Amino acid sequence: MHTLKELQNRIGEAFGDTRFIHQPTHLYEPIAYTLDQGGKRLRPVLVLLSCELFGGDIEEAVFPAMGLEIFHNFTLLHDDIMDHAPLRRGKETVHQKWDVNTAILSGDTMFVLAYEFVAKTNPKLLPQVLDLFNSTARKVCEGQQYDMNFETQAEVSIDDYMMMIRLKTAVLIACSLKLGAIIAGADAVSADKIYDAGIELGLAFQLQDDFLDAFGDISKFGKTIGGDIATNKKTFLFLKSYQLANAQTRQNLTDLFLGSGTDSDKKISGIIEIYKQLQIDEITRREIEKHHKKALEALTSLNFGKESKGELLSLMDEMLCRER
Amino acid sequence: MHTLKELQNRIGEAFGDTRFIHQPTHLYEPIAYTLDQGGKRLRPVLVLLSCELFGGDIEEAVFPAMGLEIFHNFTLLHDDIMDHAPLRRGKETVHQKWDVNTAILSGDTMFVLAYEFVAKTNPKLLPQVLDLFNSTARKVCEGQQYDMNFETQAEVSIDDYMMMIRLKTAVLIACSLKLGAIIAGADAVSADKIYDAGIELGLAFQLQDDFLDAFGDISKFGKTIGGDIATNKKTFLFLKSYQLANAQTRQNLTDLFLGSGTDSDKKISGIIEIYKQLQIDEITRREIEKHHKKALEALTSLNFGKESKGELLSLMDEMLCRER
Repeated sequence: MHTLKELQNRIGEAFGDTRFIHQPTHLYEPIAYTLDQGGKRLRPVLVLLSCELFGGDIEEAVFPAMGLEIFHNFTLLHDDIMDHAPLRRGKETVHQKWDVNTAILSGDTMFVLAYEFVAKTNPKLLPQVLDLFNSTARKVCEGQQYDMNFETQAEVSIDDYMMMIRLKTAVLIACSLKLGAIIAGADAVSADKIYDAGIELGLAFQLQDDFLDAFGDISKFGKTIGGDIATNKKTFLFLKSYQLANAQTRQNLTDLFLGSGTDSDKKISGIIEIYKQLQIDEITRREIEKHHKKALEALTSLNFGKESKGELLSLMDEMLCRER
Repeated sequence: MHTLKELQNRIGEAFGDTRFIHQPTHLYEPIAYTLDQGGKRLRPVLVLLSCELFGGDIEEAVFPAMGLEIFHNFTLLHDDIMDHAPLRRGKETVHQKWDVNTAILSGDTMFVLAYEFVAKTNPKLLPQVLDLFNSTARKVCEGQQYDMNFETQAEVSIDDYMMMIRLKTAVLIACSLKLGAIIAGADAVSADKIYDAGIELGLAFQLQDDFLDAFGDISKFGKTIGGDIATNKKTFLFLKSYQLANAQTRQNLTDLFLGSGTDSDKKISGIIEIYKQLQIDEITRREIEKHHKKALEALTSLNFGKESKGELLSLMDEMLCRER
């Protein structure tokens, strides 16, 4: 078994070995720029981890794993256009640094690249791998559409929200784990079980992201606190507080949320204050824990040896900022 | 052998049988809207024609053929955003009717759909089919980037232009023919030969499109005359006239081309007048004929019976507006 660190290095090395710049450079430079920023490479590492858990050779999984990472970065690139986001991982977004047309077309090209890497798999497994990737990609698009719809939709329930993050975030985490299983030759039942674990992990991961936006330690989190609040995102925290609030608090929330005149810092601190009053931090932590537990149960049903799944459990803890 | 009409009907029927609207409808309605507009379905018909020419069963080619058509429509959808085009086939473009975000995301989803349909092929052929489709999709993106680059690039040679239309237009025509060949089980050499024929056909087809923009019969062409001129497209006609013009005419061309103050009708008629003086119509016709001939030569080398390739030759004539 490889350690997490070794798997991360293997993915980093694979990206380092790949030349992403071709002609016309104007098309490929934004792709190299996006992929050079690294990020945590969570998804490809999950592919390799799962592949190894099921007894596969990680070398057979490296290219398809890179495909998922390229796809993930493609979705961020296009999402950033749609959200008018100026920054990503502390650097200018592609549509900001170049322009919208460049971001659209470089994104499209990254999407093709993702397919090219996913296709570099054992030909016998290709139909199954491609089916999984296609259905995942479609769901991620659906999730982004729901996310955009929710911005202007008056009533969004917690169930709606969970459905949205399942599509937008969790299915790609689940796909990563299932892809590793398929490449290792796992049977269909086991591949589906690890997919289910991935869904729960993905839900917990997104809720954790929501949580950190309001309650994170800036020095560890690396993002500004309150970004979701400033941009009026209807996160789990907001929806839950709206659900639990009495009429007066609900009015305060709405006023702060929609109050275009409100100073941004005041808005953020005002809303976080309400979250605290309603114990949204504790409620969110419990919700994260619930999904984490479900993910562990799905993994337990797979009967891996305790040692063999140690690295996956570590990564899950890291994703959910849990102390071990 | 099926007639052209029968093949077109088969494709129309296949699109008619497919439900493109799913949840969330805001994502899928623009896709159904785009695909409902029909168009000539040239590319999928070319897939079926080629499949049949090589002795294959067209039913095995219908879904992948639809995949190419969906891909083609996806590229138009995203290109229309980049070109700020208000109309496509006489109807509002998606970004105009909905908005840019919807057009980006529905386009991305169409791209996934294209892959889903392309994947519905004999699993044994999938690696080969997917390689062809991936490399084609990448080239089409590269072609679009060159096309955008040329808008602001001071010097564009005829060679540059031919390279651009090869990528942006011809490779997808060529891919259509090769895809049909692969599905029919053709050998690699024959599949490459029909690909080459497709490249030449595609080049001729794009030059014909350029030609019709200036010299077309409005009633038959269905587009307004001079659209390329009005939007300052550096077409074959423009580049050739610039190459052949003397200093004075070149100055006139540039003044008309860049003269933002010039009335659009005057600009169009002025530039067409110069094209006529320089016999660009005749020169373009000869260039089209040259590529048509090369396409026919590539086909001849494949030794199909004269009767069997009759429908393909008819479609080629139709694409190039040739009287038979």
